[in-house]
Amino acid sequence: MINTLTEKIKKLEAPIVVGLDPTMKFVPEHIKKQAFAEHGETMKGAAEAVWLFNKGIVDAVCDLVPAVKPQIAMYEQFGVEGVHAFQKTVSYCKEKGLVVIGDIKRGDIGSTSEAYAVGHLGQMQVGETMCRGFDEDFATVNPYLGSDGVKPFIEVCKKEKKGLFILVKTSNPSSGEFQDRLVLPEGSTDASKARPLYEIVGEKVAEWAADHMGDSYSYIGAVVGATYPEMGKVLRQIMPKSYILVPGYGAQGGRGKDLKHFFNEDGLGAIVNSSRGIIAAYQQEAYAKYGAENYADASRAAVIDMKEDIKEGVFC
Amino acid sequence: MINTLTEKIKKLEAPIVVGLDPTMKFVPEHIKKQAFAEHGETMKGAAEAVWLFNKGIVDAVCDLVPAVKPQIAMYEQFGVEGVHAFQKTVSYCKEKGLVVIGDIKRGDIGSTSEAYAVGHLGQMQVGETMCRGFDEDFATVNPYLGSDGVKPFIEVCKKEKKGLFILVKTSNPSSGEFQDRLVLPEGSTDASKARPLYEIVGEKVAEWAADHMGDSYSYIGAVVGATYPEMGKVLRQIMPKSYILVPGYGAQGGRGKDLKHFFNEDGLGAIVNSSRGIIAAYQQEAYAKYGAENYADASRAAVIDMKEDIKEGVFC
Repeated sequence: MINTLTEKIKKLEAPIVVGLDPTMKFVPEHIKKQAFAEHGETMKGAAEAVWLFNKGIVDAVCDLVPAVKPQIAMYEQFGVEGVHAFQKTVSYCKEKGLVVIGDIKRGDIGSTSEAYAVGHLGQMQVGETMCRGFDEDFATVNPYLGSDGVKPFIEVCKKEKKGLFILVKTSNPSSGEFQDRLVLPEGSTDASKARPLYEIVGEKVAEWAADHMGDSYSYIGAVVGATYPEMGKVLRQIMPKSYILVPGYGAQGGRGKDLKHFFNEDGLGAIVNSSRGIIAAYQQEAYAKYGAENYADASRAAVIDMKEDIKEGVFC
Repeated sequence: MINTLTEKIKKLEAPIVVGLDPTMKFVPEHIKKQAFAEHGETMKGAAEAVWLFNKGIVDAVCDLVPAVKPQIAMYEQFGVEGVHAFQKTVSYCKEKGLVVIGDIKRGDIGSTSEAYAVGHLGQMQVGETMCRGFDEDFATVNPYLGSDGVKPFIEVCKKEKKGLFILVKTSNPSSGEFQDRLVLPEGSTDASKARPLYEIVGEKVAEWAADHMGDSYSYIGAVVGATYPEMGKVLRQIMPKSYILVPGYGAQGGRGKDLKHFFNEDGLGAIVNSSRGIIAAYQQEAYAKYGAENYADASRAAVIDMKEDIKEGVFC
């Protein structure tokens, strides 16, 4: 799947992933009205609204971008009905030819990570029948539990030709609280050789990546926030074969010019996410002219502008 | 809810939580047959089997233990249908008077953690109506993203009188890979003062805990694996007001005598989880006499034995 993703990025000249992270305040009134008319002001109604909202955006941008990244939290907030909308969204995006990165940030002890990996990327034997759960193409994984929490995901990816993005340095303001702490080398007391935890995690990702290669990139990638460009530069060197999934562009403050060092010299190796900036574009001044009725056209315009911003910031 | 949990633990003399982590290989044939007859060899059939299996165990142990801990991964492996079985399990356990700890290990950037917190512990406004999602009493949280990934959970807990267990030192073999790394004090190069990351995280938990107290314990607890008793001893001191949720007992190797130092001198402050050891007791030699038909009775016997083992190991 990493080969497919790379090819699509090259073909579309768009190292861009659209974050499908819907909240009720992004969903235009006419869609809410339609969904509530059918299902009432219930979780089912909310989930239906979110699904219709997503579908509009996907239809409007699927020829422009290689991938989408639904954030499962935004669906879990609506309970089981929301998770159902997540599944419908994943399936629909795949039908439309998009690569789907499930932003699930799971991670647990071995046997539990295996269950997550099976549910999101693999297949499950039920009696004599093989069944698939959510069936995303990639998933994000939290590394706090160490190798045996990550390896079951890698095993499933290997079998299914799928991939991972492992959290290394996240985009949020307090990500440094633990991730930036200076760590001594193993077995050493030489403080001058201490390095931030995110580098240690990055090195581990690089190891896993080297052992699990696609054609030119590994299917074990990393998450590094656009909001920390200097760290991105260092981590790019540490993980040369990993795709970096870069959140934090747009609404969180990252701009095209901050992204240069997340890419390799081949112009590849990073894919930049924007969520609110695209899916709620119609609520921003720059795209207000589209109006809520044409929210999907506003999203399309925002994708085109983002593509331009990245081209200028990164490749010029 | 921490007051309720504490009272129940005292009343039942059982600092025990039953991990409802079903996999198909734990579910007896007669239950699978019943579920597949109705729904076929599908995810729906598997999810129904898991739900029936859980219900049997819950009915058999609900008068003995204060709490259950369904591990959501074991439900997500069956896709949306599995998540539905998770929700049914949570609701049923609450009906039976059990405290429900959702073992979800979520954690993300602020706005995303808020969505998880709302979905699992809080309520969501849909139009003019307030709706609840999964509605567990407690949730486990992954701290890798720092304060702003944890605080939205705390806020919802405060409002809803619920609680958290934050991962500090997990029970798995490779948990030390990042959690045990020696970290320099902030702004210092004094290697002699370096301490393991899990202590740094533990201190943060202690801070949050002190600010969010129930009657005698905080509703911000921690996860520390039974498999690391020496670290448990240190962390007990660092987080005096936090309940420690202790996984790793039984199948993972922890025993009653390893648990002494996870408790405070008041005999409280820890709750020990066993999953496989209880729910799949009938598959173990010690309880084989019950047979698969009476798997729930085997689980009941295993709970009684665990209670005894902890009493002897911890309180004698």
